[in-house]
Amino acid sequence: MNEIIWATPLYLFLKYCNESPLDKVILDCGAGGESPPLALFYQYGYKTNGIDISDKALEESHIFCTKNKFDLNIIKGDMREIPFEDESMSFVYSLDSIIFLSKAETRMAIKEIERVLRTDGLCFINFKSIDDEDYNKGEPMGNNEFKLEHEWTQGKMICSFYEDNEPNAYFNNFKILRKEKRVVDCFCTENGHRIGYIDYISRKK
Amino acid sequence: MNEIIWATPLYLFLKYCNESPLDKVILDCGAGGESPPLALFYQYGYKTNGIDISDKALEESHIFCTKNKFDLNIIKGDMREIPFEDESMSFVYSLDSIIFLSKAETRMAIKEIERVLRTDGLCFINFKSIDDEDYNKGEPMGNNEFKLEHEWTQGKMICSFYEDNEPNAYFNNFKILRKEKRVVDCFCTENGHRIGYIDYISRKK
Repeated sequence: MNEIIWATPLYLFLKYCNESPLDKVILDCGAGGESPPLALFYQYGYKTNGIDISDKALEESHIFCTKNKFDLNIIKGDMREIPFEDESMSFVYSLDSIIFLSKAETRMAIKEIERVLRTDGLCFINFKSIDDEDYNKGEPMGNNEFKLEHEWTQGKMICSFYEDNEPNAYFNNFKILRKEKRVVDCFCTENGHRIGYIDYISRKK
Repeated sequence: MNEIIWATPLYLFLKYCNESPLDKVILDCGAGGESPPLALFYQYGYKTNGIDISDKALEESHIFCTKNKFDLNIIKGDMREIPFEDESMSFVYSLDSIIFLSKAETRMAIKEIERVLRTDGLCFINFKSIDDEDYNKGEPMGNNEFKLEHEWTQGKMICSFYEDNEPNAYFNNFKILRKEKRVVDCFCTENGHRIGYIDYISRKK
């Protein structure tokens, strides 16, 4: 059996995708990194596509693909302008990724996800909750958006935080199927740390 | 590839178990039903054991095991008095199950889980949050415990609800590794419904 991937919320999305009658074609927005979650979908027979804006993350994912002989098709791309045709995807997800866009950019990115999705196509998108420990840290940039230093990034990045129902407004052209707010206390370090997410699974109307 | 199980929070627990150096021996408390989540662990090479107090749930799980030729070892048993030896298990979980005990019984059950676990053994136990839509319905029985009618049970059952940190007190002889509060809005029906859980992954000291 294959390793359990780190991005465990995607098992639920995979279950939704498996139950959909649409072709198994999927796009990950923010797909790069050392252990790309697209591998899970690849192993379940999906034709996978991924975009990432970071050269470092792209390089890491290419090393993974070469090592594991997985053809995940992860290319350079910006989710504010997705380099795929209209209605070319049955499924799209963005895990822990759209959170690094401003709210105006997030609106653009979700419009793009809508554009590349087929009717009845499914998407999984998660957002940072204001219950996350990083909320209200860093340099305030407006509407609960902050410029923050992250351990794993070079330089500061924007991060957007949301109230519980706030992201609903992005999904006017979708039917929201499931919304899950997760507040996780991890005690891997002495003091622990708290992360807060709001995950949406939606179907394009 | 195998089907994705309905009990998706267990993928994360499986990841913790896979990373543990202990033998792959696991117990599910409340293991019965039409689609026993132990199947996931079985497919990953675990020696599985399950107990369930309900004859109906046991029968359903036996039909599943026969049909799929899975030897899951699900037997009749009560988690308030687990029919296994001290320190016989590396891993124990109770998913959506201990919630149907009173708080006094829950304390007994977690003492039993502690007894059958080896040192450094891991457990996953989840509780109902007071943010669940069923909170404060039914017949009040004391300390946020209620007798409720459930669609899928015959007659009323007790259900215990917890404030965010309240279950911490059950884990004095454990190191809590991860605590996740999940509030899920499901829109499978017109009005939707809200379920609230608090999931603990802990290691026996």
